[in-house]
Amino acid sequence: MATPEIDTLLARRERLLGVEVPTFYEEPVHIVHGEGVWLTDSEGRRYLDMYNNVPCVGHGHPRVVEAMHRQTQTLNVHSRYLHEGILDYAERLTALHADPISTAVFTCTGTEANEVALQMARAVTGKRGILASDSAYHGNSTEVRKLSRLRNNDDPEYRGFPFPQRYRPLQEGLSDDELAGLYLDEVRSGIADLQASDAGFAALMLCPILANEGLPDIPAGFMPRVTELVHEAGGVFICDEVQAGFGRTGRWWGYETSDFVPDIVAMGKPMGNGLPLAGVAAPLDMVNAFRKRTRYFNTFASSPLQAAVGMAVIDVIEEEGLVERAAQTGEYMRDALREMQEACEAMADVRGDGLFTAIEWVSDRATRIPDPEGADVIVNALKDRGILMSRAGAGANILKLRPPLVFEREHADHFLTVFEAVLRDTQS
Amino acid sequence: MATPEIDTLLARRERLLGVEVPTFYEEPVHIVHGEGVWLTDSEGRRYLDMYNNVPCVGHGHPRVVEAMHRQTQTLNVHSRYLHEGILDYAERLTALHADPISTAVFTCTGTEANEVALQMARAVTGKRGILASDSAYHGNSTEVRKLSRLRNNDDPEYRGFPFPQRYRPLQEGLSDDELAGLYLDEVRSGIADLQASDAGFAALMLCPILANEGLPDIPAGFMPRVTELVHEAGGVFICDEVQAGFGRTGRWWGYETSDFVPDIVAMGKPMGNGLPLAGVAAPLDMVNAFRKRTRYFNTFASSPLQAAVGMAVIDVIEEEGLVERAAQTGEYMRDALREMQEACEAMADVRGDGLFTAIEWVSDRATRIPDPEGADVIVNALKDRGILMSRAGAGANILKLRPPLVFEREHADHFLTVFEAVLRDTQS
Repeated sequence: MATPEIDTLLARRERLLGVEVPTFYEEPVHIVHGEGVWLTDSEGRRYLDMYNNVPCVGHGHPRVVEAMHRQTQTLNVHSRYLHEGILDYAERLTALHADPISTAVFTCTGTEANEVALQMARAVTGKRGILASDSAYHGNSTEVRKLSRLRNNDDPEYRGFPFPQRYRPLQEGLSDDELAGLYLDEVRSGIADLQASDAGFAALMLCPILANEGLPDIPAGFMPRVTELVHEAGGVFICDEVQAGFGRTGRWWGYETSDFVPDIVAMGKPMGNGLPLAGVAAPLDMVNAFRKRTRYFNTFASSPLQAAVGMAVIDVIEEEGLVERAAQTGEYMRDALREMQEACEAMADVRGDGLFTAIEWVSDRATRIPDPEGADVIVNALKDRGILMSRAGAGANILKLRPPLVFEREHADHFLTVFEAVLRDTQS
Repeated sequence: MATPEIDTLLARRERLLGVEVPTFYEEPVHIVHGEGVWLTDSEGRRYLDMYNNVPCVGHGHPRVVEAMHRQTQTLNVHSRYLHEGILDYAERLTALHADPISTAVFTCTGTEANEVALQMARAVTGKRGILASDSAYHGNSTEVRKLSRLRNNDDPEYRGFPFPQRYRPLQEGLSDDELAGLYLDEVRSGIADLQASDAGFAALMLCPILANEGLPDIPAGFMPRVTELVHEAGGVFICDEVQAGFGRTGRWWGYETSDFVPDIVAMGKPMGNGLPLAGVAAPLDMVNAFRKRTRYFNTFASSPLQAAVGMAVIDVIEEEGLVERAAQTGEYMRDALREMQEACEAMADVRGDGLFTAIEWVSDRATRIPDPEGADVIVNALKDRGILMSRAGAGANILKLRPPLVFEREHADHFLTVFEAVLRDTQS
């Protein structure tokens, strides 16, 4: 039941922002305060935040707040004047990447980063065609939107392929190696189609952990082998680390979990802990090809403010050991969830890396039929008990647990207790 | 002569950000501090800022700094939870616009705002074709880039027309009314071409003051008449207020200087005084058509942070009377510049509105040949004497004076004294 306050806010929203502005939950929450892993609503109710990846070092982290405050008092201006802040930040950020990734282009949003990545791949290869997963989402600009829902795509420059997964594999009963080979055949065929077209083949674009697809277990070997395939075909591998990057997976970058090195990396969400800050990192020659072609300039990007805040975020991640902690806490939580699977038919698969966990929710384990409605019941029941998370995946049936990186074991324990109670009350 | 410090910064920049990252001036400046209309370099040298429109209420304005600090300490999260901040801001912002503009879509950058505007126009009309000035710049995404340099465009969904101007008119010796009619014919013909194509005609997109074109005097009556023409053809008028908006012209919106009301307004640069904040305002039905078609979501936009900062900027503009002051100070400065024209052949035309002034720099007044090199000498000479501004326009020969709105008469006097000295030293 929505309170009069919520109804009023929803009505104002529809008048001032228009219809169908996305909200979470049957009865949306009205959040007024955030601190660490906790959000508080207008009635003083606290929620454990197990959704938000943007405030990666926690809501209102004092180091980041202070860095932003100090820099806005000092200087915040565009990059056509010189400033060492953005150079120090670019140096620090690219040093966290695998060789030969050495150079950065900054933007304000993940969409803009993926725009730069696409333009860079096309400048480098002279081709236009992009291959991507058929269940991806990479952003909201006209061009990047073409990468969404590629199953129904008829744009000659974009082509989708079935994303690699072990839970609902293309074919049953195969070894990882054989299954990876099957998905590689799909990629090979997509590349060949693009090469045979006017577009040619420029790039494969993938989230390294396939987050929007539902965080599937990727058959071992797929990512390194697909990297080779892309390079053999004269293309570049664009890795969309907007969700996977900055320690989320228990490694600095999502690509480290699958043991490959992409050519172009797009980064975003957690990068500025809430300040619009995103960008691309790539080898110098690729960045130069892009710069020469576009003379790219972004008014708000590469600013002293972005630099100061981005640097503070890296400082906190390193000093608080958040990458390692994400690995440990995530593993601890998944172990406990897997123990609960026996008693709960719907919890068909528990998977993930670091502090990004997916629970595949099905109506029947044998048939693996997605149960988005059942998953929605859990999401809303957890919200009513003070835990915020959401659903994801191609079938919208996957419970998505993705708290700020400062989520600790005690928070995991709290979640596990509440989750067990929700299962008891809803699954009988 | 670049100092060793500047050389080192330029070398690091090329290594970490790539080649051809735009800088200003023959020897770029290394700015470390900003306050009000003043910027300070690493050697303590102060520059009067007559370029920057983003910090509209002045560099480091304490009210904006404080609003940002308070909000980052309190809450900064995405818009799928409810928050009244963004509703209050949308209400305040849209109330500043003419009827029936009532509803807002927020983004982080002007490019993203123009992306939304294009998507909205296409959702509303069901057509794809966009008509724009042949010397425009509206942003850096793949789609919005198609609006740049439309003279050489071969994309079937985009068409350019010669922008209306009085200094180098399509035909000499005409009255304003006749000249406006001539440019309207160009628009009419562009619309007809699009209507005859598969794309159809969706929208005309213009900066209301044609800032990137060089801030021309627009023949009286052109804008209201072109608005009618667009509507008769079933299209919508997208007004790119990214540069013109927020008091720059001595009116709240650029469209007020030409006495018309557009359908869709894109806003950006000054909106957050440096925080990435941009957006679109339009009638409710147009926003709804866009929302239904796209279910648009932007992670960093519509946040409590954007709302708090955007609100503080409007507060300061209103409380300090910056719109009126921009009108007065700008007029005062242009009057003085026009007096200097007699003694300086190169200063062929002085024009503008509010705190946005253009000086057309030519090698010969009779032939009106643009003199970009001569203009560049002035830009660098002013920089050497502690005044920062730049060049613009289709011929890159237009001196562009566009200080923060807190620029006062005493700053104008300082500029005029220095400018006179530069003219004395360079024009003989």
